Amino acid sequence: MTLEFKSWMQDVQSRMEQTLAAVLPLQDHLPLQLHAAMRYSVLDGGKRVRPLLAFAAGAVVNASPERLQYVGAAVELIHAYSLVHDDMPAMDNDVMRRGKPTCHIAYGEASALLAGDALQTAAFDVLSSYTLTDAPADQLKMIHILARASGSLGMCGGQGIDLYSVGQALSLPELEQMHGLKTGALIRAAVLLGSYCGAAMSDEERARLDCYARCIGLAFQVVDDVLDEEADSATLGKTAGKDAANNKPTYVSLLGLMAAKHKAAELKAEALAAIAPFGEKARGLVHLADFIVERTN
Amino acid sequence: MTLEFKSWMQDVQSRMEQTLAAVLPLQDHLPLQLHAAMRYSVLDGGKRVRPLLAFAAGAVVNASPERLQYVGAAVELIHAYSLVHDDMPAMDNDVMRRGKPTCHIAYGEASALLAGDALQTAAFDVLSSYTLTDAPADQLKMIHILARASGSLGMCGGQGIDLYSVGQALSLPELEQMHGLKTGALIRAAVLLGSYCGAAMSDEERARLDCYARCIGLAFQVVDDVLDEEADSATLGKTAGKDAANNKPTYVSLLGLMAAKHKAAELKAEALAAIAPFGEKARGLVHLADFIVERTN
Repeated sequence: MTLEFKSWMQDVQSRMEQTLAAVLPLQDHLPLQLHAAMRYSVLDGGKRVRPLLAFAAGAVVNASPERLQYVGAAVELIHAYSLVHDDMPAMDNDVMRRGKPTCHIAYGEASALLAGDALQTAAFDVLSSYTLTDAPADQLKMIHILARASGSLGMCGGQGIDLYSVGQALSLPELEQMHGLKTGALIRAAVLLGSYCGAAMSDEERARLDCYARCIGLAFQVVDDVLDEEADSATLGKTAGKDAANNKPTYVSLLGLMAAKHKAAELKAEALAAIAPFGEKARGLVHLADFIVERTN
Repeated sequence: MTLEFKSWMQDVQSRMEQTLAAVLPLQDHLPLQLHAAMRYSVLDGGKRVRPLLAFAAGAVVNASPERLQYVGAAVELIHAYSLVHDDMPAMDNDVMRRGKPTCHIAYGEASALLAGDALQTAAFDVLSSYTLTDAPADQLKMIHILARASGSLGMCGGQGIDLYSVGQALSLPELEQMHGLKTGALIRAAVLLGSYCGAAMSDEERARLDCYARCIGLAFQVVDDVLDEEADSATLGKTAGKDAANNKPTYVSLLGLMAAKHKAAELKAEALAAIAPFGEKARGLVHLADFIVERTN
């Protein structure tokens, strides 16, 4: 990781922390417990990978940080809501997340259910509250992209396929379809949304970004599976070895550890090839591809 | 109820059934159980009060049914998601809704959690997928109105206040604040959203509509409390006497049955006075005020 990239990343992360803290209702707004649970689940945690991707994609079109911070916040709020609900007893029943008790452990199940609901709403609130594009019609398109990426044909659908596949033998294409929705769709949305905040892009350019986003989204999940197999809970900040214990199909269980690592490297190479024509403007995306594939938690 | 109103209401209800069936993913889309649970929770049920209000408000500005049906669908999807989550064991733990088993009873808790999540997303998907206003900037405003009405400062916040107030002595103003959020905010959004689909309105006109919507929203809840006290479960299609059993504060428990009925009538009168200047164009709103206050389930 270069010093320049590290400093850029910290800048974005700190701007995101401030933006998220500002768009979420304060803890002294009624209902207090709900707002406390929402803030607990979003602030002071996470690598902000999706906002980082939005900022890096935005750099390709010279988008302003003032716009990108709201796009990043919207995507991160969707991500946070999905974690809160995914951790609940009816789903993964997990007690640790980002090194602290999950929302329903800290605030109770009812508050976690409502907090997740309200975090999702907050994402669409943010995307409709600020001017994020030169043409309002493009901003409607962005909202549509986020909704489609998050709903039953996107992330939420992927969680459903994941849920219904526990204990079942998935093929590799089925696993890729599941992750393409569960993790990939929102990562793709983050990249695309960032690219709408600046200068206009040709269809071919956007298709290149999209190819990058799809490869990186998949690589992200492959690496997640590798880490779930290799890391311990302390490094991971969440319960390790969970997928194997739950008898869930993973890239590691289907391909083996070495082949899964090889696949992640291949996907990274494909992602980088797609954005090569953008040159220097895409250096954030290049660094993020490294960061996502080489991370240890 | 006049024949003309009854027929208008049935037209809207049948158009809404078709629209909702069309905007929800088909049951043969993966994940099957999730889409089945979503359709189960939305179709063939409910009076569609919120869509009816959107259509009636739209009539004031000559909005087209082709636009209003999507506004109605978005608001109804938010309403449906809130019922699915509200019925879950962590919240009200209810087993019957609209005369059939609640979503988590029919499809399990995990599917109900995901179905509610995806129904909320579907609402914002719908509002960003079709042209609903002449100016795209107005449509962004509509999305903002729906998000604000649904989130932690609106409906979801009201559910939180309700949740945290079980067994507590609420004052009448506190009860009104709670219901103003829990039920009122979405009813208000339905009316306002309908009014954005047609000709432009002055601020004074929109304030009149808003006053109508606030009064009717509150009246709706007062009548709900009266019905919960008076009706049996068969007429209600859901478990009756639940609030009293849960020791929840209601208008009836605070005011008594007679005063609660009187309050509903007063609110109706205030609502009608607000929209009187709209004349004949507001006749749908007038009929709906009757319908909401005089209903028996």
